[in-house]
Amino acid sequence: MQFHLNGFEPGDPEIFDPAERYRASAASGMLPVEVDVLIVGCGPAGLTLAAQLSTFPDIKTCIVDQKSGRLLRGQADGIACRTMEMFQAFGFSERVLKESYWVNETTFWKSDDRRRENIVRSGRIQDTEDGLSEFPHVILNQARVHDFFLDVMRKSPSRLEPYYARRLIDIQTSPAGSSGDHASPYPVRVRLERLDPSQEGQIETVEAGYVVGCDGARSTVRKSIGRALHGESANHAWGVMDVLAVTDFPDIRLKSLIQSASQGSILIIPREGGYLVRIYVELDKLDPGERVSNRNITSDYLIAAAQQIMRPYTLEVKEIAWWSVYEIGQRLCDKFDDVPEEDVEKRMPRVFITGDACHTHSPKAGQGMNVSIQDSFNLGWKLGSVLRKRCAPRLLHTYSAERQAVAKELIDFDREWAQMLSGSSSENDAEGEGPDPAETQRYFIRHGRYTAGTATHYRSSAISAEPTYQHLAEGLVIGTRFHSAPVIRLADAKPMHLGHTVKADGRWRLFTFAGEGDAAAPSSKIRALCEFLADSRESPIRRYTPSQEDIDSVIDVRAIFQQGHRELAIESMPAFLLPRKGRYALRDYEKMFCPDLKSGNDIFNMRSINRERGCIIVVRPDQYIAHVLPLSRHSLTAS
Amino acid sequence: MQFHLNGFEPGDPEIFDPAERYRASAASGMLPVEVDVLIVGCGPAGLTLAAQLSTFPDIKTCIVDQKSGRLLRGQADGIACRTMEMFQAFGFSERVLKESYWVNETTFWKSDDRRRENIVRSGRIQDTEDGLSEFPHVILNQARVHDFFLDVMRKSPSRLEPYYARRLIDIQTSPAGSSGDHASPYPVRVRLERLDPSQEGQIETVEAGYVVGCDGARSTVRKSIGRALHGESANHAWGVMDVLAVTDFPDIRLKSLIQSASQGSILIIPREGGYLVRIYVELDKLDPGERVSNRNITSDYLIAAAQQIMRPYTLEVKEIAWWSVYEIGQRLCDKFDDVPEEDVEKRMPRVFITGDACHTHSPKAGQGMNVSIQDSFNLGWKLGSVLRKRCAPRLLHTYSAERQAVAKELIDFDREWAQMLSGSSSENDAEGEGPDPAETQRYFIRHGRYTAGTATHYRSSAISAEPTYQHLAEGLVIGTRFHSAPVIRLADAKPMHLGHTVKADGRWRLFTFAGEGDAAAPSSKIRALCEFLADSRESPIRRYTPSQEDIDSVIDVRAIFQQGHRELAIESMPAFLLPRKGRYALRDYEKMFCPDLKSGNDIFNMRSINRERGCIIVVRPDQYIAHVLPLSRHSLTAS
Repeated sequence: MQFHLNGFEPGDPEIFDPAERYRASAASGMLPVEVDVLIVGCGPAGLTLAAQLSTFPDIKTCIVDQKSGRLLRGQADGIACRTMEMFQAFGFSERVLKESYWVNETTFWKSDDRRRENIVRSGRIQDTEDGLSEFPHVILNQARVHDFFLDVMRKSPSRLEPYYARRLIDIQTSPAGSSGDHASPYPVRVRLERLDPSQEGQIETVEAGYVVGCDGARSTVRKSIGRALHGESANHAWGVMDVLAVTDFPDIRLKSLIQSASQGSILIIPREGGYLVRIYVELDKLDPGERVSNRNITSDYLIAAAQQIMRPYTLEVKEIAWWSVYEIGQRLCDKFDDVPEEDVEKRMPRVFITGDACHTHSPKAGQGMNVSIQDSFNLGWKLGSVLRKRCAPRLLHTYSAERQAVAKELIDFDREWAQMLSGSSSENDAEGEGPDPAETQRYFIRHGRYTAGTATHYRSSAISAEPTYQHLAEGLVIGTRFHSAPVIRLADAKPMHLGHTVKADGRWRLFTFAGEGDAAAPSSKIRALCEFLADSRESPIRRYTPSQEDIDSVIDVRAIFQQGHRELAIESMPAFLLPRKGRYALRDYEKMFCPDLKSGNDIFNMRSINRERGCIIVVRPDQYIAHVLPLSRHSLTAS
Repeated sequence: MQFHLNGFEPGDPEIFDPAERYRASAASGMLPVEVDVLIVGCGPAGLTLAAQLSTFPDIKTCIVDQKSGRLLRGQADGIACRTMEMFQAFGFSERVLKESYWVNETTFWKSDDRRRENIVRSGRIQDTEDGLSEFPHVILNQARVHDFFLDVMRKSPSRLEPYYARRLIDIQTSPAGSSGDHASPYPVRVRLERLDPSQEGQIETVEAGYVVGCDGARSTVRKSIGRALHGESANHAWGVMDVLAVTDFPDIRLKSLIQSASQGSILIIPREGGYLVRIYVELDKLDPGERVSNRNITSDYLIAAAQQIMRPYTLEVKEIAWWSVYEIGQRLCDKFDDVPEEDVEKRMPRVFITGDACHTHSPKAGQGMNVSIQDSFNLGWKLGSVLRKRCAPRLLHTYSAERQAVAKELIDFDREWAQMLSGSSSENDAEGEGPDPAETQRYFIRHGRYTAGTATHYRSSAISAEPTYQHLAEGLVIGTRFHSAPVIRLADAKPMHLGHTVKADGRWRLFTFAGEGDAAAPSSKIRALCEFLADSRESPIRRYTPSQEDIDSVIDVRAIFQQGHRELAIESMPAFLLPRKGRYALRDYEKMFCPDLKSGNDIFNMRSINRERGCIIVVRPDQYIAHVLPLSRHSLTAS
């Protein structure tokens, strides 16, 4: 898709008339008086959480933002492979694929040894290693990601829309609220002030079961629970601009890192629509305590700096769609909820923070939006499970435990990467030679999985088991995301991705991989497992599934056989794998799969599943692997 | 995607609340008094044409329908690969891929030799041969296809919406109108009657440049131009029903043709959403002159017949979403416009008919919607070109010439196929043995390209050249659709399909395939061609492109090189392949491609392009190949 040719226009590019591309859409009237979850902030973290909770019709969610309406331009744009996988679960990955720029290759530029003031290409690499994900790394205006989440919310059972122009004043949690079972369901009292001109200054009070602060680096929610960001002072300043420009720089449509000899660095990120490009420009170091905003840097200054760095190539900027300057500071909150470490055993969290409210860092590794979204994806199903009484409230402690560790890694990575881009980390830069491009390129490749978002590895916990049986599926590592692979659906021979059966619907999945030759005959392990799950009083499915609901409404079981799909007879399969559902008790034919042998992509080989023994992979609602178990191990507790 | 579990609900399944899934959306008020094109009928043919014309802001189009609003259920559902390629050009193939059932395999069932009253599977085949198209054959409610076209129209420059509840009364063409250049631009006077209760009986008059009858088998437009359908009387009756059912028939999620010994045949077409299925049921032969509607066939009768045929398998129907009975009659109109054959040299057409208005046939080859859509796709760009004065009106004669021949083939095919399904064609059925399943299966395979819609081959004409240089690209046959293949885009290394650059925007495309080793060096043929196209007074691009428009607004030139994409330097390419466009004269970086060598899919091999000499492929706005030319042959006339 090509667009923005005649100037940047926000909204849906498929709509011809720019004035029709974004419609005001918002909740109107007063805030509800009581809600299960109040989300503060309509950035990627807030909207991911709202979209997740909106799929549960029995949970009352409210999302507010200080702004008067939705975001239209600027801010983040990098979407990692792992985030695309999550978008698939939310049902809009195909829209992002269509509209976004795909980062296929990255190039590196350095100063020309013969003419130091000029730059030359020093390297060109594939951006994402083969097989890392079925999705590419893409770039798209954060505002469009918001739009897709807003669309999910609007279409959901809850028909959720944000309340805009609300400023959070304060939060008070009744002490009983955190202590356990007998408390009020709405122990958190939140006061907000209306900012919309017609109601300006009006105070609203909401009583909430849980409050989640997705309100950015200056989070009021964070302050209200007495937490702070810790880290180094921000002494690197960068500028960023989204421009329509004419240049003879050959790699303007490739992600390019340019490190000049003495003029600093820029990072070029091509953008959606074929014409727009984002340019990050390194600015001078700040003095201790200095703020970049005091330097009165203009967009003209950024353009001039980029032009200097890109020599001998020209850059003629025709339009600036958005620009900003900022300091880099790697800062982190030590806990992401309102329960002090020492009280974890006796108190349950009621207030959470996600995204920039708990970690700030540079945007140039393209991690900000992605890590924030994953924060909320981690928290969303947990809140849903607790509110729907499928899990005990102590599950909520795992949010801070899991995500704070990820944020810590992010901060460490970002510090190193930002210093590398600025050239000040190199210890061999004693001679002021500037950054070493070869080192930068090596670092970039080494951390490819990390920046793709696929390296996240949650530690052992109540929802991430010990690796006792990890050897049964070495390619599906407990604590990492369920890495999809191609399969053929048995009933209709459809080639598809097994991981795409995992939707953002709060359900757990059991992927049961059959052993060699197992075609679900009467003596088979798969059949025995199905019979246990269907009939045993010990079956977690019987235990957790409410009697009036479909059998797969809490735990969704899928089976993958080793045979080609024409070798199995669907009529001989266990009834449990053709479950009767809905008001008519119709059969669900989408539970069984076979390897895609024709394409040569056998999921058993690709994910190193033990062919002889098979296994069970337990997948959490956020797509992470909770457990690997033998087929014969019917009890699914994480031990 | 799974949906319809608790009953069929029309509209967008991504919206949770069925009541929100379809919104009334229509043009309101009186019809416009003057229009360039009046389209009668909002079926697939009418909406395809409306969607095509809606992309031209300078053409005033109006579409009317007798119904009071949009279609919600029933009718056609088969979408051939070729139609998916066209949907790609209209920008909604990814939505159809997501929502539809994919026809991956087809099975054949016959009576069991040991127990004649029972059926057994006699064959199972891949539905579409490998490599035939980059798209699968899919099944989706016709109403959803309408929705996607309505969406294209609504988002277009023209913001086109249908006027519903309008019955065509009559059409009068002023004799001068068809004769040539000096006539009124609106020579066709159309009278319509309003059917909406508040304005019932009110007569509106529209003066139109062209009128297109997409008004079905009983077309009033056809009658108004004195044409009729000719063909055999309808003596085969069939029933069709869309049901939610429980069955132990193992292939219920595969397209299945069941030919019983003595109870007749049924055809099973699984449908979107995982639960719905369409069943075609053969009914008794009709007496000469008899209409099936006189038999008072009920849905219970259809169910009972299906149950008989499916023995020993059970079929328990829980809900009937839609059902109908119909006679098969293969009938065809001998010309698709208002100009008698003998007047072609001296008159230009002003009234056209498309789709069922010109050809009727059985639905079971899944061709109806597809051929109708292709009729309109063929006509749409021609009307657009003539109205925008890019082509002379005689181009319009090619519509009937090209599409009548296609319809003739369709009718012949359908007659054979319908007889085969009914078992009455077999000459070796003298003994009343019923149909021969092996013969049916062989016939099905043999005609796979035909049913996929990729066999259409337009004869030589002013827009379909003689195959003088066909040997330069044996896999891209003049008169057939441009068969896409994977490529890598040079500027951003994006893997994509070359054919997907062809949008339904009325533009012509020149795909210039470079000869071996040609990297657009100063002496190269590609460069010489670019220089000719850019600068020569003979250049068709200079001749046809209005001076204020972008260089690719009429003819879009793309170049495909043989080298890997890292072997070419974009900075050395002809400026013509990096054209400056739009108000800022930005560079368009999306004109150059390389083979996808890494995947092993080299377009030069896949389409048998002459490596030594390269070639130019001229592609019409409807994706058909108009010409194959040597690179050195700069004049592009079809000779």
